Amino acid sequence: MLYIVGLGLGNEKDITLRGLEAVKKCGKVYIEAYTSLLSFGLSSDGLSTLEQLYGKLITLADREMVEEKADEILSEAHGFDVAFLVVGDPFGATTHTDLVVRAKKMGVEVKVVHNASVMNAVGVCGLQLYCYGETVSIPFFTETWRPDSFYEKIQRNRILGLHTLCLLDIRVKEPSLESLCRGRKQYEPPKYMTINTAIEQLLEVEQNRGESAYGEETDCVGFARLGSEDQKIVAGTMKQLQMIDFGTPLHCLVIVGKTHPVEDEMLDFYRLKGESLEQIGNRQ
Amino acid sequence: MLYIVGLGLGNEKDITLRGLEAVKKCGKVYIEAYTSLLSFGLSSDGLSTLEQLYGKLITLADREMVEEKADEILSEAHGFDVAFLVVGDPFGATTHTDLVVRAKKMGVEVKVVHNASVMNAVGVCGLQLYCYGETVSIPFFTETWRPDSFYEKIQRNRILGLHTLCLLDIRVKEPSLESLCRGRKQYEPPKYMTINTAIEQLLEVEQNRGESAYGEETDCVGFARLGSEDQKIVAGTMKQLQMIDFGTPLHCLVIVGKTHPVEDEMLDFYRLKGESLEQIGNRQ
Repeated sequence: MLYIVGLGLGNEKDITLRGLEAVKKCGKVYIEAYTSLLSFGLSSDGLSTLEQLYGKLITLADREMVEEKADEILSEAHGFDVAFLVVGDPFGATTHTDLVVRAKKMGVEVKVVHNASVMNAVGVCGLQLYCYGETVSIPFFTETWRPDSFYEKIQRNRILGLHTLCLLDIRVKEPSLESLCRGRKQYEPPKYMTINTAIEQLLEVEQNRGESAYGEETDCVGFARLGSEDQKIVAGTMKQLQMIDFGTPLHCLVIVGKTHPVEDEMLDFYRLKGESLEQIGNRQ
Repeated sequence: MLYIVGLGLGNEKDITLRGLEAVKKCGKVYIEAYTSLLSFGLSSDGLSTLEQLYGKLITLADREMVEEKADEILSEAHGFDVAFLVVGDPFGATTHTDLVVRAKKMGVEVKVVHNASVMNAVGVCGLQLYCYGETVSIPFFTETWRPDSFYEKIQRNRILGLHTLCLLDIRVKEPSLESLCRGRKQYEPPKYMTINTAIEQLLEVEQNRGESAYGEETDCVGFARLGSEDQKIVAGTMKQLQMIDFGTPLHCLVIVGKTHPVEDEMLDFYRLKGESLEQIGNRQ
């Protein structure tokens, strides 16, 4: 049996009782490294908080390992119980869907333990989840690669009065260009897009397109470390949020559509109210 | 402090360790009755599984109570710790947003403990969450009230190739028409919309509109008791799903948009494959 267990968003305490029970009976426990290292404050040699809680050794599985060694992991799951831990809910990312497909093809039974994900936890700011349009991803721009397909999607959502969740790029274990040229793998340090960079890129694209899908005065909500004890949520215009230091990753951004009165009331609690930047820095 | 704690989707084991910790330190514990009675197999005099797990008495709070007695609940939370338990994630429904707004206005501190909700758990069928458009609600049609504003939304999503999550109506503690006329409150028995009724209504609206937003051959995924041990997920055309008995509530329905290959592969596992209806009935 392969258990795919969502860990939620904050720390080791966000696992469910059902999830913990599953992990405790597994002979082998993997954790996906793509976002977990960060959200759970883990380092590659420091899984100890989780290991203590579970009473198990945990193997860190990066994307490469999941993609290359999936069959190995899955053959273990043929004989006995294996857990694969995922930050958030198991089906936030395509990689995990792919693992399930492979498992089912190999005849390995799969059980999923759900948990909170960014996709539903953004509801905390008061904007109703059923009033969101299509979610967009904002990739890091490079000198030569500045894809802006998110622009039409945001534009469409805004015309319909819908909110837009923007997921911000994460680059973990990217081979460096130099190392690729030399033929041996070396990795860039991990990079997580901040709300500031996201807004900068969004405004650059608006300037190029000039169709007024949004602008400096467009209302947004910035989320840092959503679901954790020190989460920070601030509502304000793009221009205002661009000035704020949201602190350590992960960040995400919501572009506000047409609001209902109860949404407005709730947003107001997160809104900038003449506070100094320092005060905002201390606000949770 | 007011703790708003998401219970997740299945049973008492779907609370997180963080949520359980919060509940255990609260002097008073409320649970919203709107969906919890059902999902957690509770009756109004049978909260015992949860009460045993928490070691606390739990007060059942129906919508009327939350709306009418919110101030009372919140003044308790001024002095000591109060928990308000919600099935799924706390921000699936507007009622809870309203409770938070009132709390903040009264100066009561609020902490939210997130959990899985239908909005993210539908990811289990393999359709990627970022490829969903606006969510729609399908209300029970009556003789005189047959609102169909969901039609344009589904149409828009399908034109864009996006999937549509349809939330199906729940009627709990509705005053009966007869009792309203007589001036004393009596309630209709609770009603939960099945996938079959939802599809019947969807097809009726399509027949009236005739704009081919969808039809009998449109691919869908039906979910019953999502996230619980006996969940049932079946992919098929509207016509096919209409023939299936999905069993006890809650049900929801996804209308499939344009799919990617990995989405197709995953959907295939849930697809009808010449099974008899009885076999499907036994499938989880």
